[in-house]
Amino acid sequence: MSDLDRVLARIDADLDRSLERLFAYLRIKSISTDPAFKNDCRAAAEHLAGDLRSVGFSADVRPTAGHPVVLAKSNGSGNGSGRRVLFYGHYDVQPVDPLDLWETPPFEPRIATLPDGRKAIVARGAADDKGQVMTFVEACRAWKAVTGSLPLAITLLVEGEEECGSKNLPPFVSAAKAELAAEVALVCDTGMWDPATPAITTALRGLVYDEVKIKAANRDLHSGLFGGAARNPIRVLSKIIGSIHDDNGRITIPGFYDGIRELPDDVKGQWAALDITPASFLGPVGLSEPAGEKDRSLIEQLSSRPTCDVNGIWGGYTGEGSKTVIPAEASAKISFRLVSGQDPDKIRAAFRAFVRERLPVDCRAEFINHTGAPAIALDWNMPQLAAARRALSEEWGRDALLIGSGASIPICADFKRLLGMDTLLIGFGLDDDRIHSPNEKYDLASFHKGTRSWARILAALAA
Amino acid sequence: MSDLDRVLARIDADLDRSLERLFAYLRIKSISTDPAFKNDCRAAAEHLAGDLRSVGFSADVRPTAGHPVVLAKSNGSGNGSGRRVLFYGHYDVQPVDPLDLWETPPFEPRIATLPDGRKAIVARGAADDKGQVMTFVEACRAWKAVTGSLPLAITLLVEGEEECGSKNLPPFVSAAKAELAAEVALVCDTGMWDPATPAITTALRGLVYDEVKIKAANRDLHSGLFGGAARNPIRVLSKIIGSIHDDNGRITIPGFYDGIRELPDDVKGQWAALDITPASFLGPVGLSEPAGEKDRSLIEQLSSRPTCDVNGIWGGYTGEGSKTVIPAEASAKISFRLVSGQDPDKIRAAFRAFVRERLPVDCRAEFINHTGAPAIALDWNMPQLAAARRALSEEWGRDALLIGSGASIPICADFKRLLGMDTLLIGFGLDDDRIHSPNEKYDLASFHKGTRSWARILAALAA
Repeated sequence: MSDLDRVLARIDADLDRSLERLFAYLRIKSISTDPAFKNDCRAAAEHLAGDLRSVGFSADVRPTAGHPVVLAKSNGSGNGSGRRVLFYGHYDVQPVDPLDLWETPPFEPRIATLPDGRKAIVARGAADDKGQVMTFVEACRAWKAVTGSLPLAITLLVEGEEECGSKNLPPFVSAAKAELAAEVALVCDTGMWDPATPAITTALRGLVYDEVKIKAANRDLHSGLFGGAARNPIRVLSKIIGSIHDDNGRITIPGFYDGIRELPDDVKGQWAALDITPASFLGPVGLSEPAGEKDRSLIEQLSSRPTCDVNGIWGGYTGEGSKTVIPAEASAKISFRLVSGQDPDKIRAAFRAFVRERLPVDCRAEFINHTGAPAIALDWNMPQLAAARRALSEEWGRDALLIGSGASIPICADFKRLLGMDTLLIGFGLDDDRIHSPNEKYDLASFHKGTRSWARILAALAA
Repeated sequence: MSDLDRVLARIDADLDRSLERLFAYLRIKSISTDPAFKNDCRAAAEHLAGDLRSVGFSADVRPTAGHPVVLAKSNGSGNGSGRRVLFYGHYDVQPVDPLDLWETPPFEPRIATLPDGRKAIVARGAADDKGQVMTFVEACRAWKAVTGSLPLAITLLVEGEEECGSKNLPPFVSAAKAELAAEVALVCDTGMWDPATPAITTALRGLVYDEVKIKAANRDLHSGLFGGAARNPIRVLSKIIGSIHDDNGRITIPGFYDGIRELPDDVKGQWAALDITPASFLGPVGLSEPAGEKDRSLIEQLSSRPTCDVNGIWGGYTGEGSKTVIPAEASAKISFRLVSGQDPDKIRAAFRAFVRERLPVDCRAEFINHTGAPAIALDWNMPQLAAARRALSEEWGRDALLIGSGASIPICADFKRLLGMDTLLIGFGLDDDRIHSPNEKYDLASFHKGTRSWARILAALAA
């Protein structure tokens, strides 16, 4: 029996205890965007560092200007030829509102049985990203338990601000360059193609996230006394938002599509062969028709085309009943998903100019920059990509697909820019995981076979 | 010295104690729209009923399906020739948000000195409507104290749901028709022309207040994974709101302007002579240019033309920081001010049809009817109007103006419809009272000379 086989057997035998460890971690309410949970975030960092020490890592909780970072290191066995990988994840989670839509409390993890019989771990963070990070930690634990060492040297960097913009991570990475040096980065924050088909994400959309506030009168006004003559900032904001897209779903901000290249025909051909349809992708969330650019296929709208979404809007009276007010201001959170070729700074500037040019007299706009990162695209000829793909294919019994994702993981661009390092994005999430939504879940199979996958990938990368 | 002169002298001498009584009433947090203040609303009703009994009224707190109604009655002296008036007011107040913009707590009334030297009572409800109601109560108190009786019979009807739609008042009025019988109704919920010029409001705009919720996906979605392909209800709602007005400020809902008659030329001429300008009316609230129909004067936009305003909007993530969510729904509170000739039911139906026709595939709209009332316009030849106008002019030393108001007081339409009774709208509010806003105030002169005005009007109506 090879070392790897014994490690895989150990993972199978240890599954219940690995779930107990994951549940303990999921119970910590590490919502990073809400200052009320600051101490919970620190508790999650301390918890994870302690767990990594129990595996045999040297692990520290390092301060940043915001929530701390967990940094852990271990050498590998002699076989690893001195190779080192840098694993990245995050211990923070999304807010849980609307709380009343959760079937059970978000921080009381449980195993549920889905309608089709799949078992799943239900809790905030189950998939994004605590469950995914623990697949890697449990794989390391099994290697250490069985062989006494890891197949190659590993550094873990686990941050606490991924869900609120990762503002303090680039300075941390920049200052810790030497400590973070490695051959390649591994990021476990992405998904499989479907429950039976593993995938490596080789392209990610970028993100520009801005907040805009429109101000008009110097105070709230009575809509009976002033209605008809006073500027209404909700109307102004709505009209601007309504003008960002044309009737064909195309974004009208000047220069927005500058620099974007069309997909190569062979990639378009590969995508056309995939069986992603409006019915399969949108049907489960209650939608039927793609809402993006009318001349683009669904998979293009999701992966290779930039978007604009309003993530939140508020202004005036929003309580029960009625209040006849013309508010003094109205706000919205607006974000753009970017593709290769788009410059986040230029997109943000173009958006703000677009808003300012549409302001009527007596209105002002204020902006908050929440985050920005360019898109990334991996070289399909990377040797580590081939090794990881082989390992994944062996675990799941079918070829791992190379896919693009609509989501943004800004750290990948930062690793390239600050550390000169490419990133392999390997994860076991599924489309129905409800990440960022009530009743987030992570398939038990994702957790179990994800752990086994990492055990294989570590061996493959060490070879 | 006439009875009236002695009553006026008594009002002057009793001013400090009348303020103490008003302050005690203002301290009660009777916010009707928020269920958390249900007991405070009842306390305000009980407080007012007790005070009216101390004046000599028989007064009850009567139940409704919502907050209770105060009903009080007193006979007059023999001189009143059996005449009876029905006074209407409300004891409920607007919510106080945003609380941090109040200079002092909203339910701790105080006397402040305005920059121009005027003294004012500052508190939520100071002007709308507790202070105004107390001018009438204090006038009654002075008549009783000086002459032992009122100059004519008086019924008071003071409700607790004016700020949240008065839904339960029409059924109450309908059921209490006999008890409410009177020659004319008096409503003290309007304003003066300016601090030196009294006014009687002879026309009021109507109101249709609707809430709309747009629903798309069956749950909140991740904007990275679904962005580009999933309907965003905030975008849908914004686009619809943005299309309600055209570039000339005209409302585009089909049939919206049906039935409206142009103002007679002589009224237009009278209005043109008034010195209401953008600088005088909009300047104090930080605006400079009328935002309504471009081919209408400011006073037309405010008084004789219908409007549409968004009073509140919300959807998605509205907390601190950022959340990359495409929400499942978005909502807005939208109201229309109506003028004579417009049918509230038709306007509401036309608005809802307008929304539904603009829904893209996969979206649904739900509506809540908050309130609806037609506009009203008084006959300028009413004898009570002439009597009240004479009394007001005597108190203030200049002619009382007859004006139209942009605000809505649905009870006036109900009195006409259910009791066949016309309403004299006489009040002492000022444009800078900040009703419905932080730091609401009521001029001390409005309170004092308002009380004196009512003492004169009661005598005039009894004559």
